[in-house]
Amino acid sequence: MKVGIVGLGLIGGSMAIDLKRKGFAQKIVGVEADPVNASAAQKIGLVDDIVSLDECVAECDIVVLAVPVGAAVRLLSNVLDAYQAAQSEDKVVIDVCSTKEMLAESVKYHPHRKQYVATHPMAGTEYSGPWAAMPGLFDGHACIICDAQESSSNAVRKVEALYDVLNMRTIYMNSSNHDVHTAYVSHISHVTSFALALTVLEKEKDEKHIFDLASGGFSSTVRLAKSNPDMWVPILTQNKENVLHVMDTYIEKMNAFRQAIADGDEQSIRGLIEEANRIRRIIR
Amino acid sequence: MKVGIVGLGLIGGSMAIDLKRKGFAQKIVGVEADPVNASAAQKIGLVDDIVSLDECVAECDIVVLAVPVGAAVRLLSNVLDAYQAAQSEDKVVIDVCSTKEMLAESVKYHPHRKQYVATHPMAGTEYSGPWAAMPGLFDGHACIICDAQESSSNAVRKVEALYDVLNMRTIYMNSSNHDVHTAYVSHISHVTSFALALTVLEKEKDEKHIFDLASGGFSSTVRLAKSNPDMWVPILTQNKENVLHVMDTYIEKMNAFRQAIADGDEQSIRGLIEEANRIRRIIR
Repeated sequence: MKVGIVGLGLIGGSMAIDLKRKGFAQKIVGVEADPVNASAAQKIGLVDDIVSLDECVAECDIVVLAVPVGAAVRLLSNVLDAYQAAQSEDKVVIDVCSTKEMLAESVKYHPHRKQYVATHPMAGTEYSGPWAAMPGLFDGHACIICDAQESSSNAVRKVEALYDVLNMRTIYMNSSNHDVHTAYVSHISHVTSFALALTVLEKEKDEKHIFDLASGGFSSTVRLAKSNPDMWVPILTQNKENVLHVMDTYIEKMNAFRQAIADGDEQSIRGLIEEANRIRRIIR
Repeated sequence: MKVGIVGLGLIGGSMAIDLKRKGFAQKIVGVEADPVNASAAQKIGLVDDIVSLDECVAECDIVVLAVPVGAAVRLLSNVLDAYQAAQSEDKVVIDVCSTKEMLAESVKYHPHRKQYVATHPMAGTEYSGPWAAMPGLFDGHACIICDAQESSSNAVRKVEALYDVLNMRTIYMNSSNHDVHTAYVSHISHVTSFALALTVLEKEKDEKHIFDLASGGFSSTVRLAKSNPDMWVPILTQNKENVLHVMDTYIEKMNAFRQAIADGDEQSIRGLIEEANRIRRIIR
């Protein structure tokens, strides 16, 4: 199997490492627009070759679009067009983006739609770039496959095999539900971390104090605020309605908390904390 | 040295383990109002004996009040009164609470004030109770000593030696500044986690989805929402003004984010994320 990875950042790079290491891919080529990242990826040995997108599509059995979702929308059409031009029916292209509906819409009527499988491996760190790539990043996490009925069963089987090699649990969902649930469980926690970092940086002018006083609790809560804007601007823009909906609920909860504290209403504060504690049953 | 620990939860229990293990205390006794926790602490072997508060104060060179801050305010006066009644001048009592001003006020004019040292070891986990105690909990973290000039230098030296054994860096601050800075860096991140848990639990009715979709990012951001109300209700109540002040800034930042997303204003979203990314320079 030859695998092409477009975008050699944290996700693309980590996939390259494990797909090669575990023997799923005999050869891995990379496409990388940023020359610094391309050189780094080659130096680290993430890929066998850096090639153009055209070469990658022509050469590879599976192409992975591991780029921010705005770029993925453009590239996905290009890849399917190339499959059409080459009368290729067996090759498969996947994306790994955190929002799905706009991608799904963009190729809904493409004659080669069946060769695209929409996937979202739910793993990552707050770091980015080829130097952030690591073996085992995906182990034990969930991977969502969206709109599987829109892809050929042959394509879905190949992609399931790929994620199986990465030790991921596969979950099936349609794009629209995917975007609702990821807004609730993933996107909102990035926004709350960004807002927390902005608050602390504004209130605590002396960075030495932040450094000295930051316990493990603060560090873990603010960790996602290190996340890359190239990835997050398009996610928050594309999943706008769902993200706004969940932000509104969040702001309501903050205001309820604020009111209880302002009133010195210990019983209400306790009630809110006990309710929040229910998360213990779900998150270990 | 005999050390008495009042409150055998995460902090008190973890102190007991390391002070004994590292030879700082030849004997450790515990005071624990909850009979289940008392039995557990003895069974686990956290302390040599469970005793009454009076026995503990009479017997020990250092008494550690490791209880929620509401209870600490009451107990601190009791301990200093007992020192006065026994005409003891050499014994030392410390607290380990996350808010300091109310404690400082409560004993400001006590004739034995100099035997009290206000301390805040900035370490913990989201778990509580004697079974959450662990060796090495404090290693490498900061410990704030408040209002050191109000304590006798002899008392401060003893307490510095204790935290030195626990491998903590000591920082000095007055109570009022302590409460401002901990509101900014610690208390707010608990409130944002509680609000995040409340939001996700309300929006995502199907707990299976939360379980399936929670990536490492969500888990770390929501982790503090597991924190114990017995500890956090008094903190948020006692540090009310500072907490409200920082919550207001936080809600402002969330609203700015919301507006930028609602406007589809990619440049503003990027600006906010890049500003938030500055936290990278401070938190590793």
